[in-house]
Amino acid sequence: MKLATIRTETGTAAVRVDADVAVELGAPDLGAFLNRPGWKALAEKADGPRHDLDGLDYAPVVPRPEKIFCVGLNYRTHILEMGRELPAYPALFAKFARALVGANDPVVLPAGSEQVDWEAELGVVIGAEVRHASPEKAAAAIAGYTVVNDVTARDFQYRSVEWLQGKTFERSTPVGPWLVTDARPGEISCTVDGDIVQKADTGDLVFDAAALVAYISQIVTLVPGDLIATGTPGGVGHARKPPRYLAEGSKVVTRVEGVGELHNTMIKEF
Amino acid sequence: MKLATIRTETGTAAVRVDADVAVELGAPDLGAFLNRPGWKALAEKADGPRHDLDGLDYAPVVPRPEKIFCVGLNYRTHILEMGRELPAYPALFAKFARALVGANDPVVLPAGSEQVDWEAELGVVIGAEVRHASPEKAAAAIAGYTVVNDVTARDFQYRSVEWLQGKTFERSTPVGPWLVTDARPGEISCTVDGDIVQKADTGDLVFDAAALVAYISQIVTLVPGDLIATGTPGGVGHARKPPRYLAEGSKVVTRVEGVGELHNTMIKEF
Repeated sequence: MKLATIRTETGTAAVRVDADVAVELGAPDLGAFLNRPGWKALAEKADGPRHDLDGLDYAPVVPRPEKIFCVGLNYRTHILEMGRELPAYPALFAKFARALVGANDPVVLPAGSEQVDWEAELGVVIGAEVRHASPEKAAAAIAGYTVVNDVTARDFQYRSVEWLQGKTFERSTPVGPWLVTDARPGEISCTVDGDIVQKADTGDLVFDAAALVAYISQIVTLVPGDLIATGTPGGVGHARKPPRYLAEGSKVVTRVEGVGELHNTMIKEF
Repeated sequence: MKLATIRTETGTAAVRVDADVAVELGAPDLGAFLNRPGWKALAEKADGPRHDLDGLDYAPVVPRPEKIFCVGLNYRTHILEMGRELPAYPALFAKFARALVGANDPVVLPAGSEQVDWEAELGVVIGAEVRHASPEKAAAAIAGYTVVNDVTARDFQYRSVEWLQGKTFERSTPVGPWLVTDARPGEISCTVDGDIVQKADTGDLVFDAAALVAYISQIVTLVPGDLIATGTPGGVGHARKPPRYLAEGSKVVTRVEGVGELHNTMIKEF
């Protein structure tokens, strides 16, 4: 089952996206919907106003998550090929909700950055409150998977030892188009202006979705709608020789097999 | 003028804290109140239900800020005495609202950490929406100052290159008791079980409040209620030889002259 938040003439609405039509779930967005007890059964039987799939305007899958956790280097093959050891703990950093845009929205190149880079990632959306979760409880707390591109201003990322300022630029991070409750995520890829720049297997994660949920829940309560971006594989532009960055008009396609695709064009801030 | 959020029998309430009494402002918390146009004039003339100052139960000054930005090393004297160069840019990291507790609340020692440390900080609360602010607009967007202790689990902080996981433990960060709209912050200090462990001048900040607001507003829109913790001076426990950490029952007093004091006792998680 695919669940999304779409923009309508009167605001936003949570929807179930079927093969032929999107059906409203009676909530203003998917974050609100995931907070309803028994949301999954409610979504399965919902029968509200309908929307043609053609021309659906996707908002970020959860427009205002309470928390967005992101993970640094987390693809085994890429870590080993760089000659590093596998980490014992995930590198976690944050992003604020104002960074998010929808699956087909323009992505804003920050005015002060000359080094905007792509990072295709598998996203995890939380569907139940968990704290100090066992691996089993952690797995059960996952509402589903989505697609994220953790677009990063490398110059800002490396201005200090902490990455946040390169990671949370307003309207920089597409997420969507939907969450898939029963996905088996496969290949992840990123394409820039037609060139495949990243390609990996989401099964290669050092810390998989359930492990991340369990780990983070030691630190803080995860709640429905929270988003975890699970890290990006090799192939980012900053590591190329010469480096390659995104520019005005660059078209980025971010894809996770079994989950979905993002199509975003870079625009200037002003 | 001092503004706070207090806990009442029916929930929380924004209040003005006068010399002799606290007066309700007609909003459920200070975050909601700061979002009202002309909040300052409204606060000055408010005349709602009154509460004795004795026994006021302070919630975090803004219980659920949309964003909490924290700053790394930011005290000039301490940076120079450590033989480092003054940074060109602030080191910014995040904290989520679930980390916050009130001015006199217990602080929860995370179950998995053996190295919980203090970090007395001057806090800045935003009072107006700003983006790409000039220094003047940045200064005008500050609602006032408060007191923060950015209590940190050092072992988690240094598990990876990113500090977030040591910084955002649930119920770890006291903030309050109020924001002062017309403060001139002076000496900052931290006392642990009666020992003065940190003492510095808040005028010694490399990036002061207005500079931080201007800088962060390049990255993302700051909105009323957002909190900036401006960094801690020398004297943290982790840097001592031998190191000193907080334990169950430790009493921490965090004080900023001209602003206020936090009084917190450490408790075990379970």
